[in-house]
Amino acid sequence: MISAAIVGGTGYTGVELMRLLAQHPAVDLRLITSRGETGTRVDSLFPSLRGYVDLVFSEPDDEALAVCDVIFFATPHNVAMRSVPRLLEAGARVIDLSADFRLRDVEIWEQWYGEAHQCPELLSTAVYGLPERHRGEIATADLVACPGCYPTAVQLGFMPLLGEELVDRNNLIANAASGVSGAGKQAKLSNLFAEVSDSFKAYGVDGHRHLPEIEQGLSDTARAPVSVTFVPHLAPMVRGIHATLYAKLTAEGMERDLQVVFESYYSNEPFVDVLPAGVNPQTRSVRGANMCQIAVNRPQDRGTAVVTVVEDNLGKGAAGQAVQCMNIMFGFAETEGLYFPGLLP
Amino acid sequence: MISAAIVGGTGYTGVELMRLLAQHPAVDLRLITSRGETGTRVDSLFPSLRGYVDLVFSEPDDEALAVCDVIFFATPHNVAMRSVPRLLEAGARVIDLSADFRLRDVEIWEQWYGEAHQCPELLSTAVYGLPERHRGEIATADLVACPGCYPTAVQLGFMPLLGEELVDRNNLIANAASGVSGAGKQAKLSNLFAEVSDSFKAYGVDGHRHLPEIEQGLSDTARAPVSVTFVPHLAPMVRGIHATLYAKLTAEGMERDLQVVFESYYSNEPFVDVLPAGVNPQTRSVRGANMCQIAVNRPQDRGTAVVTVVEDNLGKGAAGQAVQCMNIMFGFAETEGLYFPGLLP
Amino acid sequence: MISAAIVGGTGYTGVELMRLLAQHPAVDLRLITSRGETGTRVDSLFPSLRGYVDLVFSEPDDEALAVCDVIFFATPHNVAMRSVPRLLEAGARVIDLSADFRLRDVEIWEQWYGEAHQCPELLSTAVYGLPERHRGEIATADLVACPGCYPTAVQLGFMPLLGEELVDRNNLIANAASGVSGAGKQAKLSNLFAEVSDSFKAYGVDGHRHLPEIEQGLSDTARAPVSVTFVPHLAPMVRGIHATLYAKLTAEGMERDLQVVFESYYSNEPFVDVLPAGVNPQTRSVRGANMCQIAVNRPQDRGTAVVTVVEDNLGKGAAGQAVQCMNIMFGFAETEGLYFPGLLP
Amino acid sequence: MISAAIVGGTGYTGVELMRLLAQHPAVDLRLITSRGETGTRVDSLFPSLRGYVDLVFSEPDDEALAVCDVIFFATPHNVAMRSVPRLLEAGARVIDLSADFRLRDVEIWEQWYGEAHQCPELLSTAVYGLPERHRGEIATADLVACPGCYPTAVQLGFMPLLGEELVDRNNLIANAASGVSGAGKQAKLSNLFAEVSDSFKAYGVDGHRHLPEIEQGLSDTARAPVSVTFVPHLAPMVRGIHATLYAKLTAEGMERDLQVVFESYYSNEPFVDVLPAGVNPQTRSVRGANMCQIAVNRPQDRGTAVVTVVEDNLGKGAAGQAVQCMNIMFGFAETEGLYFPGLLP
Repeated sequence: MISAAIVGGTGYTGVELMRLLAQHPAVDLRLITSRGETGTRVDSLFPSLRGYVDLVFSEPDDEALAVCDVIFFATPHNVAMRSVPRLLEAGARVIDLSADFRLRDVEIWEQWYGEAHQCPELLSTAVYGLPERHRGEIATADLVACPGCYPTAVQLGFMPLLGEELVDRNNLIANAASGVSGAGKQAKLSNLFAEVSDSFKAYGVDGHRHLPEIEQGLSDTARAPVSVTFVPHLAPMVRGIHATLYAKLTAEGMERDLQVVFESYYSNEPFVDVLPAGVNPQTRSVRGANMCQIAVNRPQDRGTAVVTVVEDNLGKGAAGQAVQCMNIMFGFAETEGLYFPGLLP
Repeated sequence: MISAAIVGGTGYTGVELMRLLAQHPAVDLRLITSRGETGTRVDSLFPSLRGYVDLVFSEPDDEALAVCDVIFFATPHNVAMRSVPRLLEAGARVIDLSADFRLRDVEIWEQWYGEAHQCPELLSTAVYGLPERHRGEIATADLVACPGCYPTAVQLGFMPLLGEELVDRNNLIANAASGVSGAGKQAKLSNLFAEVSDSFKAYGVDGHRHLPEIEQGLSDTARAPVSVTFVPHLAPMVRGIHATLYAKLTAEGMERDLQVVFESYYSNEPFVDVLPAGVNPQTRSVRGANMCQIAVNRPQDRGTAVVTVVEDNLGKGAAGQAVQCMNIMFGFAETEGLYFPGLLP
Repeated sequence: MISAAIVGGTGYTGVELMRLLAQHPAVDLRLITSRGETGTRVDSLFPSLRGYVDLVFSEPDDEALAVCDVIFFATPHNVAMRSVPRLLEAGARVIDLSADFRLRDVEIWEQWYGEAHQCPELLSTAVYGLPERHRGEIATADLVACPGCYPTAVQLGFMPLLGEELVDRNNLIANAASGVSGAGKQAKLSNLFAEVSDSFKAYGVDGHRHLPEIEQGLSDTARAPVSVTFVPHLAPMVRGIHATLYAKLTAEGMERDLQVVFESYYSNEPFVDVLPAGVNPQTRSVRGANMCQIAVNRPQDRGTAVVTVVEDNLGKGAAGQAVQCMNIMFGFAETEGLYFPGLLP
Repeated sequence: MISAAIVGGTGYTGVELMRLLAQHPAVDLRLITSRGETGTRVDSLFPSLRGYVDLVFSEPDDEALAVCDVIFFATPHNVAMRSVPRLLEAGARVIDLSADFRLRDVEIWEQWYGEAHQCPELLSTAVYGLPERHRGEIATADLVACPGCYPTAVQLGFMPLLGEELVDRNNLIANAASGVSGAGKQAKLSNLFAEVSDSFKAYGVDGHRHLPEIEQGLSDTARAPVSVTFVPHLAPMVRGIHATLYAKLTAEGMERDLQVVFESYYSNEPFVDVLPAGVNPQTRSVRGANMCQIAVNRPQDRGTAVVTVVEDNLGKGAAGQAVQCMNIMFGFAETEGLYFPGLLP
């Protein structure tokens, strides 16, 4: 049994983390902080947790946090970097669900996140929390930077094609759609029901913060720079990310059975599920689950590979993946507390 | 460990039952039948169950069913009554989620369900599967008739008021709204996304099949005939039932603290949660959970009590309640396999 | 051709008004004000109006407004009362879509709207803009107070029953559900897509501001005080109000053919449509239209009348009704600019 | 005033056509046929049309049809070709909203639509009803084949880039999402609310019937064969198509100001609206309107152009475009009956 704390638990990632940790047999959730809701019962903000989480939001307090075995940051970007160094020094292990430690290059980070990084030295020691690529390093990490929701889907979809030079790495296209919970629990006009319901739009077309993270990860896989055109869209649904990935096949790629390539690549992964040939996934199949479902197609037998990927942006795209990382870090079975089907319909 | 079978598992109640049973530590789901989908893998119809249910839909076969400890009927109405007598004789215990055994009066049943009942003698021995009223009888029952989704919400909401004559039992009003999954997985125009999305309507205003079931149960509680005006509505959501109940308070009722009445009435119930005074529930708080949340109000301190009730129509309104009954029947902890929070957002 | 201005046009009522006025053959929309968006092009905030409204939001300015023939206030409550007296003095005619002039009793107004009224003398001269009751007075009014969305639906539904004492006026129940646009275009957590989507809840159970307005209007119709229990609900849809009204029939009411009562009552109304017997309305049938569809039922031939009513909360419940009042005030055909079907699906 | 008939008017295209024609000042809608609903009042199937369309569905009857000036086919594919030759001979002019006359190559048509074409000789004389390309021919055509919803959006988005060889025509990618009404009013499981709500998926990845139509049209524009990878998706909304188009810029394309290219290309088009630089469209801005809004981007100043396009699949993608063609054919103002803003929110 380990003790856990959550910093900044009033958002959607926070409530999903609590849902998962409340069911995890090896975790005792001790502390959940929120500046804005200090003193409020957690289950008054989230009535779904009545009977499951008997805590009150408390003021952030590094000392109280540091005695926990693991601390999750479910804060907005640019917050974790202000506390993490002290907590690591005090011996805690940190899983950050925000973007503060996802990029290795401090200049790129500062360009996209708009201020000076508070602890750039940690950018190189933080481990990127994508178990399918960094399982070994996660196991021993003190600081894990959980991937963004889009980067998880896009990387898992492209990785099998890039490891073996099956596609042109200079012209990758990642077209993705996200549910509205991905925008967080923020009181902004653009997130209102009457603004997004029954509509569909692209956003961040000229540049989304997840682009450098995607290119960093895929360049690692390809062992060469990749170039991705990434266009995110907002879909009128609560949860779910759907990525449709396009890549031009190389001569080598044209000769391979892509279904076999994908099935082999993920044959040992508990949370990446390659669907049978000819079946493409839908987001609802993984609603509430820590699961990524993938399909690979070669439409009309032409020269373009089309990969479709789904995940729950709050599950495998955030809180589920964080718990998966925690399981690896603390030596639990990787599926502990995460082995249950999605909610369908 | 008990063995279980599901008859008619291709609908929404079926997939929810499978989701719950797949996670239940004391149940081995052996068999799932469907005439229309015989030979189809369950997880090809329901990709959310990939990795959790490794079964193929099979032809209904009483012999194969009868060796299971418990058989769930998730069939449309008027189907279970054709097989249940044989299965009971063979020693199986049956939990019927359809309406075949919910009414005690065969004439009323035949009037509402449109054909002769095939085993009217079982109507009096079947136990109505509302644990909050019939826990003791459920424990020893061989045939449990699970309540309908609306009747569960409406009865749980009115029961505390009727047991003690706090309201006029001749003028009860039950206004309820259901998510579309309540209409089942049927290829009908009226269930199409483009027909029900972004719209709201009443239906069955002149008479819904759940009315006699509601009046039967509430008359039992009141130990006198009750009269309910019940108007169901269709709301553009997948899961959830919301009931708003109106009752005229008696002189006795005007003097009582209704909050105390409700909290006492349900103080020992694991799956009925009376919210704090002043807080009314929303359906999403119980999405995917076997939970009923209730609030009682007396608007403007006038003479009318208003009770609001939510449940997941597939959870406490169907599959969850069925598993709760199973737990009682087989001596498991009543919360076994059902103790997890709803999915929010 | 008359000139028109809109004060406070950045919300949903504002954009709906502009949509209607842009198509109205006898109206020249000259001015639209907004403190927060001064200088912004209207069609940059509302791209649906590109090519139809070539205006820029301007600073509110009583002089510029007063030269217009008609001024619509689409502001939040408690704003119009601060400018209307001056504008009336300057000779303009005002149609207020907010609540500032809906209640005749200043004490009740101040109790529900939380501050001192700025021009209580106008409460008695303002005309309540429900054409089906006050057509004659609207024609000559200088100040019209447009009804709230709920009060429009609830009053239109109960009026035929109350005029002739067909029901017990002391126990009326109005159960209503609204689309989320009814909450306005406000950046509040409770209006977020991820908060209200796929969910249903009651709100304001203990007392909603529309209650006194409903009771005032219905008492007028009944020529005696009425008592209404009014419970509004939030449904996951953009537009639409659905009211389900319950009333206990008197002996007189039990003998009448309610269908005939309703059809006679509204036989000359262009925007109230009594559906054929046995058909209940759905909100989508009037989406975008200035239309109220009504049905009356007597379930199971018992003693309770059930009336179902739908309208578009932004149409007949707000902007459409305002334009209907304008047509009456300025001697246009009442259906001018409003005679088109709703958008279905 | 011309007389009009609709063949097969029970679907979503049919009701949208009726909504538009009911408001069109120069059209008298005389006849609407439906085999399945013969004898049913149109407004009983579509209560939104009460007061606007006073017709009864009639049995299809070529003689009765042929006396009308214009006949719209809103039938499923493979139906119109069985009647059109006779109607043309009788002197009627036909606007077919189905796919029967969209492809010029009969072999390709038969390959995608699965049976022998009944009047292949008409494939070469039918005019493709995209006014932005074929306005002149539409004016004199007797048979207009209205484009599919996806092809309209995809062609309008790519056309400005292909006319001048600004992009590599061999690697075009069209990623599109459609509302569910695009699947028609068909009682199929895959269109149920509980199946598509709160979910997102690709479909027809290996080949959708709109692919050959898109490639035919774009090859015409490019005056050379083009190759498109087209992946449609289903989004949980009622109306709307959003296309995200990707093309690799040529050296020439890299030097041009793409915003200027698009604005010039569509400068005289009443129903194609190029948004200001930096603004991408959303589907709700054109809900219910005959309008296509387009934006062009060059993300990160790299070598890929990204065009976003929205339309209402039932508006500019079907019924609106058909009425636009009718206006051109009969010499009305092209915007007659179509000049009104979309419904937002």
